[in-house]
Amino acid sequence: MGNRETLGIKMLRKEYDHIILLAHGSPDPLWKQPFESLYQQVSLTYGKNNASLAYMELTTPSLEEVIATLGEEVRTVAVLPLFLAVGRHLRHDVPAQIAALQSDALQIELLPPIGEDELVKQAMQTVVANHLGKV
Amino acid sequence: MGNRETLGIKMLRKEYDHIILLAHGSPDPLWKQPFESLYQQVSLTYGKNNASLAYMELTTPSLEEVIATLGEEVRTVAVLPLFLAVGRHLRHDVPAQIAALQSDALQIELLPPIGEDELVKQAMQTVVANHLGKV
Repeated sequence: MGNRETLGIKMLRKEYDHIILLAHGSPDPLWKQPFESLYQQVSLTYGKNNASLAYMELTTPSLEEVIATLGEEVRTVAVLPLFLAVGRHLRHDVPAQIAALQSDALQIELLPPIGEDELVKQAMQTVVANHLGKV
Repeated sequence: MGNRETLGIKMLRKEYDHIILLAHGSPDPLWKQPFESLYQQVSLTYGKNNASLAYMELTTPSLEEVIATLGEEVRTVAVLPLFLAVGRHLRHDVPAQIAALQSDALQIELLPPIGEDELVKQAMQTVVANHLGKV
């Protein structure tokens, strides 16, 4: 633990029993399609036991509903927000939801949003560059 | 034109005089940082004359404000939403804003959101896979 902190390296691999992809939610029923599709790809490779998809509001299942379905063997959960940036929701609303769902038997950690990952940032830059199409 | 439509190919390169990256907006002043950072990278390479950054609501500048700053030589604008999915905003609110700002002298086209681009989808899958860390 000391070493990881000293090096500033966060080792996520196998550190959690389960990962929950958390999207915002929308009143539009078609909005969720890309998130469902991402989850489908993930669960094809990793199985439905290792990863779930939940929504912060307006769309189901909620974080609470997903956590209620987890088996007792799941002791640590990571929540990966399918958001582009940290705002009010990830600074306040989601941490409050997590605090209410967490217990001695279940540790829940909120990860940085997927949009702040270097790979996604790089891909977005490339998409913009492709649209502009000249250097 | 006929050929492009027949082939189902949308040629974006140099098709527009200007591109506007459009993010959602937030009451949280720190939320906009990753979008500003993406725009900064883009404008370092392409210059501020070819691309702008605007927000749909709550954060400035608005789409209207950005369009008001464009020179008369700009006749065609593409709006690239920095969103992960199409919901109420991209199906209704943004098209309504664009309809109000469009004129014979200025054509504005709304592109699919950046999150639905294959490169970004692929990057998000990789990020999730890296968190899960085993195949």
